[in-house]
Amino acid sequence: MSSTVTKTVVVEGVLDANDALAQANREKFDRAGNFVINMMSSPGAGKTTLLERTLERLGDRIRIGVMEGDVQTTLDADRLERFNIPIAQVNTDPGFGGECHLDANMVRYGLPGLPLDDIDVLIIENVGNLVCPAEFKVGEDSRVMVFSVTEGEDKPLKYPLMFRSVELVLINKSDLLPHLEVDLDALNRNLDAVNPGVERILLSARTGEGVDEWCSWLESHARSGAVPLVK
Amino acid sequence: MSSTVTKTVVVEGVLDANDALAQANREKFDRAGNFVINMMSSPGAGKTTLLERTLERLGDRIRIGVMEGDVQTTLDADRLERFNIPIAQVNTDPGFGGECHLDANMVRYGLPGLPLDDIDVLIIENVGNLVCPAEFKVGEDSRVMVFSVTEGEDKPLKYPLMFRSVELVLINKSDLLPHLEVDLDALNRNLDAVNPGVERILLSARTGEGVDEWCSWLESHARSGAVPLVK
Repeated sequence: MSSTVTKTVVVEGVLDANDALAQANREKFDRAGNFVINMMSSPGAGKTTLLERTLERLGDRIRIGVMEGDVQTTLDADRLERFNIPIAQVNTDPGFGGECHLDANMVRYGLPGLPLDDIDVLIIENVGNLVCPAEFKVGEDSRVMVFSVTEGEDKPLKYPLMFRSVELVLINKSDLLPHLEVDLDALNRNLDAVNPGVERILLSARTGEGVDEWCSWLESHARSGAVPLVK
Repeated sequence: MSSTVTKTVVVEGVLDANDALAQANREKFDRAGNFVINMMSSPGAGKTTLLERTLERLGDRIRIGVMEGDVQTTLDADRLERFNIPIAQVNTDPGFGGECHLDANMVRYGLPGLPLDDIDVLIIENVGNLVCPAEFKVGEDSRVMVFSVTEGEDKPLKYPLMFRSVELVLINKSDLLPHLEVDLDALNRNLDAVNPGVERILLSARTGEGVDEWCSWLESHARSGAVPLVK
């Protein structure tokens, strides 16, 4: 008589496809010693201009690489070309169906274009969007968002997942504050309501106000090494 | 002897699920005589402020209803409450998994909250996002986008599907132009590159500049009746 043994496999902590690929990216970054930032914002909040200011200040001190995520065009990558740094462009439209975000697989496709061993800090400039980019880990150490004061103080409440998922909010376009009715105190209260005590720096990528503070944050985080982001 | 007859069904022009539901919405709008606008933009481009200015000007002449699409909160609907108009709030987070856009099914869920027979113009304020909302018909007659000059002149090239899918671009926050380096001529060229000759109105929902022109557009389109938008 034969007996049938049913073996029960307990499935625990299994990664979904995106998280599995994000972990694979993470392992590549760790081997190369990269500190990786997933930079997110609405369209036109000033990510690329801030990268220009950052490269002007830190380009000689830290080896910075950039991955540009856009639905179409290489306009942002073109703007950074003058810095002679490694740049990989990932367009979500031709290969990935016009996706509104970068996910781990898209980043994985972009990595062969970058000499990771020669990079200290990799900044991944995500597609301009306050919703979906926050839903996809790409293997980053840190999430930073650029928020333009022109967008209004209510946005943390309306797009809480994004604001909750970042560890630093760069409040950009401070030079426009005299011309806006935006309530900075309310913005700070709304940030604390969705992500209590989240670090924030008021800056203007245009005038340079606050940019040194951001560069110090970046330099000190890069020096302290690639500590995996626990979420 | 029996013969087997194979009947070939030729499937042509079958609607996908979203388009089928959009058509069902469309039929409801047609029965009620509604002119329906799908209003789209980035987060913080000024859709709600423009709706306030619009209701101040047209509220006595046209029966306007609003459907507010947001990931979370009823902040926008709250701002319009003082106008005593029919407003339906659709939150994409609790029921629809945090979607970054409205689709035909979400709009369908919101419709029972609106007295369509008592509405001339229904304005559907979509989730703030320059990518995905453009991919989903909701049964609208017309697509209008609000674009803030603070977002930069390159955006039509970077998010072409959105700019291509609309018949009117409201170029908002004109009052900030003296404080920005944005190139309006380049913006116009980029608009024409992706959507040649698309109608555009430069306005400021804050100062009121250009708002009358937009209201005239809206009134004349509402009067000419609900003509299905062919895309």
